[in-house]
Amino acid sequence: MSSPFKARRKALNQLISHAKLDALVITHPANWYYLTGFTGESGVLIVSHGAATLITDGRFSTQVRQETTFVRLVGQKGSLMESTGRLLREKAVKRAGFDSAQTSVAQLNLLRKAAGSRTKWISAAGMVGTLRARKEPSELARMRQAAILAGDVLAAAIPLLKPGVMENEVAAEIEYQMRKGGASGPAFETIVAFGERSALPHARPTAKRLRKNEFVVLDLGAILAHYCSDITRTVYVGRAPARVKQWYRAVLEAQNAAIAAVRAGVTCGDVDTAARQVLAGYKLDRLFTHSTGHGLGLEVHEDPRLARGQKTRLEPGFVVTIEPGIYMAGVGGIRIEDDVAVHAGNTEVLTRIPRDLIEL
Amino acid sequence: MSSPFKARRKALNQLISHAKLDALVITHPANWYYLTGFTGESGVLIVSHGAATLITDGRFSTQVRQETTFVRLVGQKGSLMESTGRLLREKAVKRAGFDSAQTSVAQLNLLRKAAGSRTKWISAAGMVGTLRARKEPSELARMRQAAILAGDVLAAAIPLLKPGVMENEVAAEIEYQMRKGGASGPAFETIVAFGERSALPHARPTAKRLRKNEFVVLDLGAILAHYCSDITRTVYVGRAPARVKQWYRAVLEAQNAAIAAVRAGVTCGDVDTAARQVLAGYKLDRLFTHSTGHGLGLEVHEDPRLARGQKTRLEPGFVVTIEPGIYMAGVGGIRIEDDVAVHAGNTEVLTRIPRDLIEL
Repeated sequence: MSSPFKARRKALNQLISHAKLDALVITHPANWYYLTGFTGESGVLIVSHGAATLITDGRFSTQVRQETTFVRLVGQKGSLMESTGRLLREKAVKRAGFDSAQTSVAQLNLLRKAAGSRTKWISAAGMVGTLRARKEPSELARMRQAAILAGDVLAAAIPLLKPGVMENEVAAEIEYQMRKGGASGPAFETIVAFGERSALPHARPTAKRLRKNEFVVLDLGAILAHYCSDITRTVYVGRAPARVKQWYRAVLEAQNAAIAAVRAGVTCGDVDTAARQVLAGYKLDRLFTHSTGHGLGLEVHEDPRLARGQKTRLEPGFVVTIEPGIYMAGVGGIRIEDDVAVHAGNTEVLTRIPRDLIEL
Repeated sequence: MSSPFKARRKALNQLISHAKLDALVITHPANWYYLTGFTGESGVLIVSHGAATLITDGRFSTQVRQETTFVRLVGQKGSLMESTGRLLREKAVKRAGFDSAQTSVAQLNLLRKAAGSRTKWISAAGMVGTLRARKEPSELARMRQAAILAGDVLAAAIPLLKPGVMENEVAAEIEYQMRKGGASGPAFETIVAFGERSALPHARPTAKRLRKNEFVVLDLGAILAHYCSDITRTVYVGRAPARVKQWYRAVLEAQNAAIAAVRAGVTCGDVDTAARQVLAGYKLDRLFTHSTGHGLGLEVHEDPRLARGQKTRLEPGFVVTIEPGIYMAGVGGIRIEDDVAVHAGNTEVLTRIPRDLIEL
């Protein structure tokens, strides 16, 4: 596979020129990985007039040389922001862009001070995010693999759901199997929630043991070759009562409606509405307490947000989760989540395992 | 165990009053956990005149009720920062403190706008961090457990280091054993670095297979009952040549010197110097490319930094890592790391496994 990093920097340079910036200061690790391939945890990337400069400390200098090409390495002296500011001052940068969502107030203060009064700081939020949202074919290939791995790991965890097993035991097995499948780790803290705990959309696994006639929500994702997946299935331990089946059907219909609504040109808010309307038809919309989904890629939560009123329009290359759920405090919760890629003419569900209610 | 959260909020209130603030806005998850017990991933905590208010969205409302006491829950409407700003406006807060290192430029802009011009925003960095640095006895008890678990898991991984095994296989086993030992997960991405790759202080595990006569650096930590541990050992696969033994001896002596330097009242810079001087005696100080250690607690990197020139003085209750290392590009690296608690009259090494060179 040829290196995509130079092409991405070229695309970014056009955005930078268009915004009349002399340089863009990038403080977010996923963004500098996307633009250079550098996987270190500390650094600043400056993209300026077609050139890329990484400032980092001694822990990462060998790594920069191994992982990047056509990137200048500058050793950090003093704090990272001081080193960055000084470099901009030396280069006499007049208009420096920064991402206000990814730069702390303290960082900007240090940058301003070190760069001096000749540098003007311009908020340029989401420039790299805009590029990252449109996945390239090579990225989609990786995301497919990550999604398939997550599905396989989830399917393999179902047989563990026997009365007596603990939430954190199941979570440990899930993350172990991900690793065995090649993942560098989970994309987020794996959710394994039994019974009433499944009514917490973001439950953390505990020592709670599974009992008969309980819900199980499994929500997990793998990071494979840097790209994230995210999948949720809900299981019922025992024969599901009629009302549980009805609830499940409502959530599945809502998910189907949202997936059907996903296509290039549609607003994210409209996809969210598609799920919400189905649940309203069942009078369950009040129990759907979160948004319908989010972008997915190098990070597990990326732009866009599929939430009420969101005006962003889906484009070919976007990958989003579709994950409606309903939560009944004291009873349990049901959530079904899949990862969906938007193409020019169609959509593709990347996660591949069945979505019907599993009764154990 | 009685809830420590109220006592911590009381201590924080004194700092808030002392800084003449009407409210402190807390955006950092580890800080709101420390002050309330809330484990959710999205929210803002406002501490004001002895009262605590958590603003969060529907995903977390049940969790707030279950996990906190004497904390008012406010449901988020619109963005988190808009909800927070509006609440401050309603309460007519005049002087609002925020942590400039933990608040993005975009967040502060939203807060300012929503709170209105009557609220003045005051940078109050590190207030909660100051409290968190001094661990309470109940926190030290948890950190001891986390450190012992990390040591046990590391010791159990040594027998896996047979020629042919892959770095990422060993990492998978390590993280699995942590989980089995009760950890909610690794405190950071486990480092398993073979041969030349051990010269990268922050190597990520790859499919590289172990060969005879290679270094192995294992650097891992567990999160147990919310608290982190962090331990590193270096192994040599085969009979170590004399120069390797000499290098190892130098790093171990440097670590011993730094551990001996740790005591209440000493500056962090002096502890760093203690390690660096020993390595200078061996003419190896140029290969020690990072700082000697960092604070440890709810997060794996906390205040203080044990680095050159750091003036912060160690206090009873501080827990820090001591982790000198030397890195020879193309050859390999050696690092030895333990977790050390500062008490009033003595210091306590929390990690318990031997530190001698292991030859396999």
